[in-house]
Amino acid sequence: MNNVDRKLEKITPLEQDFAQWYTDVVQNGKLMMYGPAKGTMILLPNAFGIWQLIQSGLNDAFNEKGVQNVNLPLLIPESLFNKEKEHIDGFNPELATVTMVGNKKLDEKLYVRPTSEVLFAHLYKNSINSYKDLPLIYNQWVNVVRWEKTTRPFLRSREFLWQEGHTVHSDPKEARSLTKEMIKLYAKFLKKYLAIPTIIGKKTPNEKFAGACTTWTIEAMMKDGQALQAGTSHYLAQNFSKPFDIVFRNEDNEFEYAYQTSWGVTTRLIGAIIMTHGDNRGIIIPPYVAPIQIDVLELFANKEPKVSQVSKDLTKLLGRKYRVRLDDSDKNPGYKASNSEIQGVPLRIEVGPKDVQNDSVTIVRRDTLEKIQIPISKVKSQVGKLLSEIHDNLYEQAEHRLIRNRIYVDNYQDFKEGILNNKFVVAPFCCGAEAEKRIKEETGATARCVPMSLNKPSKNAKCINQECDGETNRYVIFAKAY
Amino acid sequence: MNNVDRKLEKITPLEQDFAQWYTDVVQNGKLMMYGPAKGTMILLPNAFGIWQLIQSGLNDAFNEKGVQNVNLPLLIPESLFNKEKEHIDGFNPELATVTMVGNKKLDEKLYVRPTSEVLFAHLYKNSINSYKDLPLIYNQWVNVVRWEKTTRPFLRSREFLWQEGHTVHSDPKEARSLTKEMIKLYAKFLKKYLAIPTIIGKKTPNEKFAGACTTWTIEAMMKDGQALQAGTSHYLAQNFSKPFDIVFRNEDNEFEYAYQTSWGVTTRLIGAIIMTHGDNRGIIIPPYVAPIQIDVLELFANKEPKVSQVSKDLTKLLGRKYRVRLDDSDKNPGYKASNSEIQGVPLRIEVGPKDVQNDSVTIVRRDTLEKIQIPISKVKSQVGKLLSEIHDNLYEQAEHRLIRNRIYVDNYQDFKEGILNNKFVVAPFCCGAEAEKRIKEETGATARCVPMSLNKPSKNAKCINQECDGETNRYVIFAKAY
Repeated sequence: MNNVDRKLEKITPLEQDFAQWYTDVVQNGKLMMYGPAKGTMILLPNAFGIWQLIQSGLNDAFNEKGVQNVNLPLLIPESLFNKEKEHIDGFNPELATVTMVGNKKLDEKLYVRPTSEVLFAHLYKNSINSYKDLPLIYNQWVNVVRWEKTTRPFLRSREFLWQEGHTVHSDPKEARSLTKEMIKLYAKFLKKYLAIPTIIGKKTPNEKFAGACTTWTIEAMMKDGQALQAGTSHYLAQNFSKPFDIVFRNEDNEFEYAYQTSWGVTTRLIGAIIMTHGDNRGIIIPPYVAPIQIDVLELFANKEPKVSQVSKDLTKLLGRKYRVRLDDSDKNPGYKASNSEIQGVPLRIEVGPKDVQNDSVTIVRRDTLEKIQIPISKVKSQVGKLLSEIHDNLYEQAEHRLIRNRIYVDNYQDFKEGILNNKFVVAPFCCGAEAEKRIKEETGATARCVPMSLNKPSKNAKCINQECDGETNRYVIFAKAY
Repeated sequence: MNNVDRKLEKITPLEQDFAQWYTDVVQNGKLMMYGPAKGTMILLPNAFGIWQLIQSGLNDAFNEKGVQNVNLPLLIPESLFNKEKEHIDGFNPELATVTMVGNKKLDEKLYVRPTSEVLFAHLYKNSINSYKDLPLIYNQWVNVVRWEKTTRPFLRSREFLWQEGHTVHSDPKEARSLTKEMIKLYAKFLKKYLAIPTIIGKKTPNEKFAGACTTWTIEAMMKDGQALQAGTSHYLAQNFSKPFDIVFRNEDNEFEYAYQTSWGVTTRLIGAIIMTHGDNRGIIIPPYVAPIQIDVLELFANKEPKVSQVSKDLTKLLGRKYRVRLDDSDKNPGYKASNSEIQGVPLRIEVGPKDVQNDSVTIVRRDTLEKIQIPISKVKSQVGKLLSEIHDNLYEQAEHRLIRNRIYVDNYQDFKEGILNNKFVVAPFCCGAEAEKRIKEETGATARCVPMSLNKPSKNAKCINQECDGETNRYVIFAKAY
C-alpha cells in the first residue's frame, strides 16, 4: 500500500456517509483542531488563510460602500444587555458569563458578546447629535461566543469569527435599502470569491434575528441537498434605538429615534466551501480564497539535477503573482500529490525527470484531476487561465446542483417527498410559527426564506399547510438545514 | 473667537500637564470612546485604521520570516492554565473568569485568555512528532483581557488587541536566535512605519515575562521622557514544554522536550504614536500608518465654481496612490483645517478661490505646519516626497530627544537627579529584585533593560545600588515608565 492509498482511505466516501465524510475532510485537510474547552476550535493556517482572504475581499467591497472598521469590547454589562427584551430572550441561554476576576466576585455580571447590537447602541447613542452626522456605517471583525449544545467544526462552534456591520440612519428608507444592498453584496461576493451560488430571500418572522424587523438571508445548497444560511442582513428599524435612546435632531430640529441595520458573515463559510466543492479526496478550495493556489512538487530530484532548479525557478516566477508553495521534501511522489489534494490546493505542478528532459512539466487540476503536459515556457501564461477555469467550473457545478434540486410543489404529499429526497422545496405558504413548527416535526425542514426573485405562478395557490384553507401568492423555500 | 480657537482650546498644552494633554488628544482625535464595561474601550476608525495598517505591515514582515497566521480559542479551562505555576501566579489576579452559561454553573471555570501560551501548548502537543515537523512558527491577531486596576486609553486597558507569535523548535539555538530576530524586526518596523526609535535590550530577571527564560524588549521614550515598552520577545526554553508535555523525536530517535518562543506588540503602539509625535494641536499620525494621509479641503466653493471641481479631481487623482479624504462640507475653513489637524492627518491640501485662480493649491504639513503654495500640476509629484519628509522629520526629532535625554551616571546622587528630570539613566547595576524595588520606591524608576548594544566603559564600575559593594560591567537603563 503506497502513501496515496494510506492517505485517501482516511476519507469516508461522501455518497456513503456525508456527515462522516465532512468530519474526515476537516480532520485531514490541516484545517482545524479542537480547542481545550469543549466546542471550541483552533483554525490552522489552511483554514485561517481562507478567512484572511475572505476578510481582504470583503473589506475591499465594504470600502466601496463607505464602511469603516472599528473595534468594540468583548464584554457586555448585564444591565446593558437587558434593555431589549426580545434580544436578551433570544440569546440568554447561550451567554457565557464572567462573574469573577481572580478570586473576587464582580459587582455586575459581564456577558461575552454573542453579537454586538447593544455595544453599537452604546457607541451610537454617544456619537450622534444631528441628522448631519448620519449615516454611520461601521463594521468589526471579531470573535463571538454562543454556548451551543451540539457543535460541529466551522458550522456551529461555541466561539466563532465573523464580521458584524452595524449602521445608523436618519432615514428609514435609506436603512432598508442598505439592508438589501448588503445581502446582495454578500451574494455577489460568494459567487465571485467562493464560487458558491446562493438564493437571496427574506426570513419568515419565525426565523428572523432576535430583535430585527426584517432579516434577509443568502441560502446555499450543500452537496447533500441541505441548506446552509451563509449570511444575513437585518433591518432593525427603531427596535434598538428606542430602548437604548439613540436619537438625533432631524431637519425640523426635533428629536427622532434613529433607524438601524446589522449584517454579518462568519467562519461557517469555510464549512460551506467544504460541503459545496469537496470530493472524496478532500476539500477543494476555490482559487481566489486559496491560501496556497499552486503547489510545486519536486519529484525524484536525486535522479535528475535539473528537477530541483526548474522547481525553484517556477516557484519564484509564479510567486510574484500567485500564492505558491514548493514541496522539496524527500517524501515520495504519491505522498506529495495526495498531500496537496487533501489540502484542497487548486493546482499542482509536478516537476519530474522525464518532464524536465522534455522541457515540460505536468499540471494537475484539483477539481477535475485532469493532467496537462505543458512546456515550461508556457506555464506562466497558462496558470492564470487554469485558476479562472477552476473557479468557473466549481461555480457552474454548484449552480447546476442548486437548479436541479429545487422543486415546486402544490400539495403536502409532494412537499414531504421533496424534503425526504433532500430538495429545496418551493411551496405556497401563508402561515406562521405554529405551522412551521409542525412541518419541522413532521419533515425536518425549516422555512429557509421567501426568495427575493422567483418565477412563480401569478395566481394565488392553496397554502401548503394542510390545516390551512387560505390561498397565497407567497412562495417559501423549505429545506433541511445546517 | 473662530472655530480653530474653539477646537484648540480643548487641548491642554503638553508642557503644562502631560497627562491631561494625552487625555485631551485622545478624546479630540476621534480615536476612541470608553466601552460600557469599566476599563474597556472602543477603537474608532481613526485609531482602528492605524491598527489595520500596523497589522498589514507586520504581516508582510512576518511573511518573510515564514510566520503563518492561525486563530486559537478565547477561553482556557482552569486545569490547563494551572499547569505552569509561575505563569498562573503572574496572571491570576487579572483573570476574567467565566463561571456560568445562561443560568447554569459550569463544571469547570474558563479563563478569558490574558495571553495564549497554554493554548499554543495544547496545539503544539497535538501537532508534532518528529524534529522534521519543526520549527512551527505561528502567530495570531486577537483580543486579550487583563483586569488592570488603573486603566488609560491605549496604554493600559482591560481588553486590548495584539498579535502574539508562538514558535516551537527542536534546537534551542534556533529558538534563541529567533527570539532576537523578532525583537529586531519590531525595532525596524517601529522605525520604518511608526517613526519611533527604540532601544533594544534584555529585561532584568525581575521584569521578565511570567514563564520566560529571557525577555527581550524595545523601549521607546515618550515626549515627557518616560519609557514605554513597545514590544517584547520571550525565549521560553522548555518552561512550557515540560509541564505541557510538548515532545518530539530528535535525530537520535529519542524523545526530547521542545524549545519555544513567544513575542508580541499591542494596540498600546497607538499610545506610543501619540506621545512620541503629538503636539498641542493633537495627534500627528506618521504617514505610513495614517488611515487618512491627505485631507483635501474645499474652501469657499460657493464663491468660485472651479474650487469644487479641482478638489474632486485632486481627490480622485491622489486617491489612486494614497489614502485621501475630501471635505466638501459647508463648514468654515478654520473648522476644516482644525478638524484635519486634531485628527493627525499628515498633509492637508487647501483648495480656495485664490488658489485655483492661480492654478495652484496650498499644502500644509501637519508636523511643521509649514504652508506650501504649489501649482496644481505639481501636486502629484510633491505629495509622495512630502509624506516621506514628514516621516523622516518625525523620526529624527524623536531620535534626537532619545539621545539628548539619555545620561550615563556613576553614582546614586546623579542617578536620582536624572530620574527626577525624566531622563533615561544608564548605570552600572549588578543587583536583583530587592534593589530594583527599593530604587523604584525612592525614585519611581524601573529597570527598563540591559541594552543589546551600547557604548560603555570597558572597565568594571561600582554598582549604582548604594547598599552593594560590587563592581560590574552590566549597564542597565532605568527610567520612569508607562
